[in-house]
Amino acid sequence: MPPIDPVDLTAHLVKCPSVTPADAGALDVLHELLSDAGFDCAWADRGGIRNLFARWGKVGNTRSFGFNGHTDVVPVGDEAAWTHPPFGAEIVDGIMYGRGTTDMKSGVAAFAAAAVDFVRDTPPDGSIIITITGDEEGESVDGTTALLEYMEHNGERMDVCLVGEPTCPNRMGDMIKIGRRGSMTTKFRVIGTQGHSAYPHRANNPLPAMVRLMDRLASHKLDEGTDHFDPSTLAVVTVDTGNPASNVIPAECAATVNIRFNDTHSGASLTEWIAGEVAAVKEAFGVEIETHTKISGESFITPPGDLSALVANAVEAVTGVAPELSTTGGTSDARFVKSHCPVVEFGLVGQSMHQVDEHVAVAHIEELKAIYTRILTDYFA
Amino acid sequence: MPPIDPVDLTAHLVKCPSVTPADAGALDVLHELLSDAGFDCAWADRGGIRNLFARWGKVGNTRSFGFNGHTDVVPVGDEAAWTHPPFGAEIVDGIMYGRGTTDMKSGVAAFAAAAVDFVRDTPPDGSIIITITGDEEGESVDGTTALLEYMEHNGERMDVCLVGEPTCPNRMGDMIKIGRRGSMTTKFRVIGTQGHSAYPHRANNPLPAMVRLMDRLASHKLDEGTDHFDPSTLAVVTVDTGNPASNVIPAECAATVNIRFNDTHSGASLTEWIAGEVAAVKEAFGVEIETHTKISGESFITPPGDLSALVANAVEAVTGVAPELSTTGGTSDARFVKSHCPVVEFGLVGQSMHQVDEHVAVAHIEELKAIYTRILTDYFA
Repeated sequence: MPPIDPVDLTAHLVKCPSVTPADAGALDVLHELLSDAGFDCAWADRGGIRNLFARWGKVGNTRSFGFNGHTDVVPVGDEAAWTHPPFGAEIVDGIMYGRGTTDMKSGVAAFAAAAVDFVRDTPPDGSIIITITGDEEGESVDGTTALLEYMEHNGERMDVCLVGEPTCPNRMGDMIKIGRRGSMTTKFRVIGTQGHSAYPHRANNPLPAMVRLMDRLASHKLDEGTDHFDPSTLAVVTVDTGNPASNVIPAECAATVNIRFNDTHSGASLTEWIAGEVAAVKEAFGVEIETHTKISGESFITPPGDLSALVANAVEAVTGVAPELSTTGGTSDARFVKSHCPVVEFGLVGQSMHQVDEHVAVAHIEELKAIYTRILTDYFA
Repeated sequence: MPPIDPVDLTAHLVKCPSVTPADAGALDVLHELLSDAGFDCAWADRGGIRNLFARWGKVGNTRSFGFNGHTDVVPVGDEAAWTHPPFGAEIVDGIMYGRGTTDMKSGVAAFAAAAVDFVRDTPPDGSIIITITGDEEGESVDGTTALLEYMEHNGERMDVCLVGEPTCPNRMGDMIKIGRRGSMTTKFRVIGTQGHSAYPHRANNPLPAMVRLMDRLASHKLDEGTDHFDPSTLAVVTVDTGNPASNVIPAECAATVNIRFNDTHSGASLTEWIAGEVAAVKEAFGVEIETHTKISGESFITPPGDLSALVANAVEAVTGVAPELSTTGGTSDARFVKSHCPVVEFGLVGQSMHQVDEHVAVAHIEELKAIYTRILTDYFA
């Protein structure tokens, strides 16, 4: 049997219009491929979402390597702006175009192809577990978490896991993600008493309290960064009042703050810090202040060690590039996997993801398969 | 000839729907009355606005007392909410209802009636000058300023002037205005660079600069007040961004500040102070800041002296109330008259002005005529 062509497999997946939360047959393609290759496959569907679990090797093997990814994609956007059909997987001058070519059907195709060839050519003394969800780009509530619950329930276990998201900012191989900052958003509403600008003593303007509070938050240095994280950042993203009359003191105003935080903090510790600042300003200005906080994710890290060294060595061996170990950027399903086992992320250059004319170099798909193959080889050596 | 009834005259004026800048015949009523009483009348119209000048006595008389007022009124607003026709001048239980009953057709009627009776009964050794405009509630650019220019051009001169605006906050006679604070409004626009909340170092958020600038302005104590003025006040009346996305750092934001200032400051000195604060914040945050300032009026005062004593004595003699000499409140045409001669303001209780069911006690109109008559008597004694 010839090696699995990851480019063909990517094209096959791209042609399934699996705009989140639709599956459109994408996971069936993988289910068939992995079943035929001797993987035990199961569906861990939940809430109308398809989720594929696949294991090669016995349950409870001492060494178990995991791959995680998703086949759902973000919407096409302005289809008229695309110069190639978004679900056509057309290849022009060595570039394949289509929604999901970067994020992340080629990543899924590369690790599936690598795993199938690997277990056929050099059956390892251990297991390979592949989890692929159809709910990463949407709500992310019935996807990888459902797969992890399925595994928990069935005694399935990965010792380490690699998430195949695009991670390289500029060139193939330049970055591995070993963690992510946390993210939280707090909305503020300051309530005073309306009045006339000529008689401010009869009113209680909420704006001086609001600008003082926002200044306190924005000018506070949260930390200096840690060994593996940049300094935490706080952005005041909006302050709004909507008062068109210069002779009227408004009754209330609103603001929103977004914080990206490292492992110095938690959502709870930052919520407490904000509450203290709010209390101080409330006391000083005699206004009411309401807050509403949503913690999108806590920070997490798999500290540099065996797993990151394994992946970095494979990347450098194939690409000649020594990857940076980073915790920058937004969120991914690694935030769920980290509760199960050490996890890192490595994949393609992500520049065109979520954009019109999303595309991938065919050579990069092949290179990515080679890297994943090398990782499996080294892990089971 | 019997005394002029100021209540009838008020009713006559209220029935002219002179919603600014319309005149609707109101000034013709006064022109006829004053001409018949021996006043030399002239029109000082400008920009489509009617303005009536009237003088009893010769030009260049040594003593010349002035009255100033307006016959234009603010719009009716929600006519359905009125329980009496807004231009009906209906009297129920001693209360006359209608737009302009308080602000300030009864003031105009009271001083016109007082002046006509006075010159007929006790012709003074001096002049009485009456200036009435149809442009006080609107733009105020072709009203009292046009009358003052007419006077300048024709060698007409008032030694002192009383503006008949409503001045009493609670009861008839409780307040004379001897000056007003200045007022100015500055709009700010802070311009940074848009970006993603996860990568704030690649953006330049305008909001930290804006909240710092507003905090600096709002927390600055402008002064402690002066002999005749309350402390100056600054109100941040709105801060706006309009950014709905918590993961986006906005490119710009806007704010408006209104300052009511006493004679410690001028529009120019405050504009300079703001420019300094803007420069400091601009430097500290590396943002662009645009400002646009509109000075609505400088502060002015006629310090307590002969004129305020004359008016206060007359008020107390008629009402039994010793009036407070105040510089509080908004703006009036006294801000123009003050460049011509000493000016004070005295009139009705202003509580219902600009409101639905604006009204005046008939007894107050008669009382006001008596006060104005007493002022003329004492002035020319």
